[in-house]
Amino acid sequence: MKTVNIAIMGFGNIGVGTYRGLEINHDAIAAKTGLDLKVAKIIELDIDRPREANPDRALFTTDRFEAFRDPSIDIVAELIGGIEPATTFMSEAMKHGKHVVTANKAALAANYERLTGEAEEAGVLFRFEAAVGGGIPVINAIETSLRSNQIDEVTGILNGTTNFILTQMTRAGRSYADVLKEAQEKGFAEADPTADVEGIDAANKLSILISLCFGDRVKVEEIPTIGISGVTPDDIAQAKAENKVVKLLAHAAKEDGEIICSVAPARIDANHPLAGVSDEFNAIYLKGNILGETMFYGKGAGPLPTGGAIIGDIIDIATRTK
Amino acid sequence: MKTVNIAIMGFGNIGVGTYRGLEINHDAIAAKTGLDLKVAKIIELDIDRPREANPDRALFTTDRFEAFRDPSIDIVAELIGGIEPATTFMSEAMKHGKHVVTANKAALAANYERLTGEAEEAGVLFRFEAAVGGGIPVINAIETSLRSNQIDEVTGILNGTTNFILTQMTRAGRSYADVLKEAQEKGFAEADPTADVEGIDAANKLSILISLCFGDRVKVEEIPTIGISGVTPDDIAQAKAENKVVKLLAHAAKEDGEIICSVAPARIDANHPLAGVSDEFNAIYLKGNILGETMFYGKGAGPLPTGGAIIGDIIDIATRTK
Repeated sequence: MKTVNIAIMGFGNIGVGTYRGLEINHDAIAAKTGLDLKVAKIIELDIDRPREANPDRALFTTDRFEAFRDPSIDIVAELIGGIEPATTFMSEAMKHGKHVVTANKAALAANYERLTGEAEEAGVLFRFEAAVGGGIPVINAIETSLRSNQIDEVTGILNGTTNFILTQMTRAGRSYADVLKEAQEKGFAEADPTADVEGIDAANKLSILISLCFGDRVKVEEIPTIGISGVTPDDIAQAKAENKVVKLLAHAAKEDGEIICSVAPARIDANHPLAGVSDEFNAIYLKGNILGETMFYGKGAGPLPTGGAIIGDIIDIATRTK
Repeated sequence: MKTVNIAIMGFGNIGVGTYRGLEINHDAIAAKTGLDLKVAKIIELDIDRPREANPDRALFTTDRFEAFRDPSIDIVAELIGGIEPATTFMSEAMKHGKHVVTANKAALAANYERLTGEAEEAGVLFRFEAAVGGGIPVINAIETSLRSNQIDEVTGILNGTTNFILTQMTRAGRSYADVLKEAQEKGFAEADPTADVEGIDAANKLSILISLCFGDRVKVEEIPTIGISGVTPDDIAQAKAENKVVKLLAHAAKEDGEIICSVAPARIDANHPLAGVSDEFNAIYLKGNILGETMFYGKGAGPLPTGGAIIGDIIDIATRTK
């Protein structure tokens, strides 16, 4: 049995989901992998906020360097979110020789080259399965199994909030404003839903997928992005009449060496595998030059699914650095 | 650049697909991974059969030990198929210190413990992504990302021929015998279609998934298996009337420590993600205790997709043994 000491940095929803996932599956993971995954530190400024997890108070620290300088810490899971200070904190952890796992799509989309480059320089592993598609193991697939392919095209339903809203509009013929209000009341959409409904969240994730699939960088600001706030019940009814479904699609393809990409509401054929991706689910559809079409489907958000992806990355790092 | 010398054992459809996949993507793989993947030997009794690939005749050998005893060979790709002599040949390759990759569901379902045990004893890696779901990277996902989960349930559409037949019966209201005949004429179904249409192929794959997902062994003969030869247009019409679709489902779940499993035609809700899996496509739907539902979709057969999975495994082994 090999003990892996983890520092969770940021104890919000995803941090708590990761902690709980480790509580629930610690013994099953140990039996399968021979790894004793242990949360050894929790780096968090607000220790007393009520949460759905009650770690020993002795694990908490407000000083990240207490974890970065501790030679027993193997992996830092960055779960703060946002571009800064998260990027700086990840850099620091790497420079201290820590492997880093993150769920942070914004930091990655903004600083993909910097972070992957710094990990290589520092000789540490850097994993970010949770940053695209939450619990869906698509990044690992692109980084391992699908490397036998040249990827020609990637199309994703990458945002659960907008997919939930469009699904409700389609099923009940309701208006965007009406469904958004309900989603906000139920906690499925944030009070300020801009990043979701205007496609910014999906564009961040698409930027990361472009880096992975094509080895090219397209900044979020350079991706033509249209959200769903202009989609009307009429648009949806017209699509339906043509046996189509309206989805917010993030799409990228390489054509004559150029990346063509966009995030926008689009009509897709009702028989396309992405058409059946409903409610808050996400999916990523890829075309490889020898595998052909493949699709990955699952929960794109939520503390436990996202925490599960974080733990999967932790296991991957621990296995590769045995 | 690290050269990886591969011996392809069995140069039928999948062997040729693997060879062609390596031809097409050799340079792209080298650029991404730093690996120079080289077919160094082809072990095959029938050298002169016409094929869709023309390797240098000097690569061919009819003597497998020429490859097994060659210290420059790193990986043997077993693509003969069938339980024997393939199992014996894989054992021999492992005992000679070769890593082994296979697409052989029958050998694996029959000899899973023996082969995984022998690989461990010999200190070599053993990979079999192509054995379940062809080009769909589900085995790698279960063996890596999804290890953060306890898998509660797995349901698959694991056989392309039967899914093609059921899709045609559903779309056109045609009879089983009628569609089967057309599928045979077009080469989608074999002259003796028993292994496919009676569910045996799917049961082999389910047995492998049970080993992987639950760490338990259920032999193919112990899986209650019903094929699709008894499915009538009436069954399909009745399902349709209830907004359901008839699919050949391979299902396994762990309930109170017991494995419940079967292969049988079943009605599933038209909104279920598996319902949209049509034609020759395959999909594997899993429920994990923290990730929730996830599904993997793609081409379950074909020389290039299956070859792509073989190459993915070769890259994985080469990366882990750098």
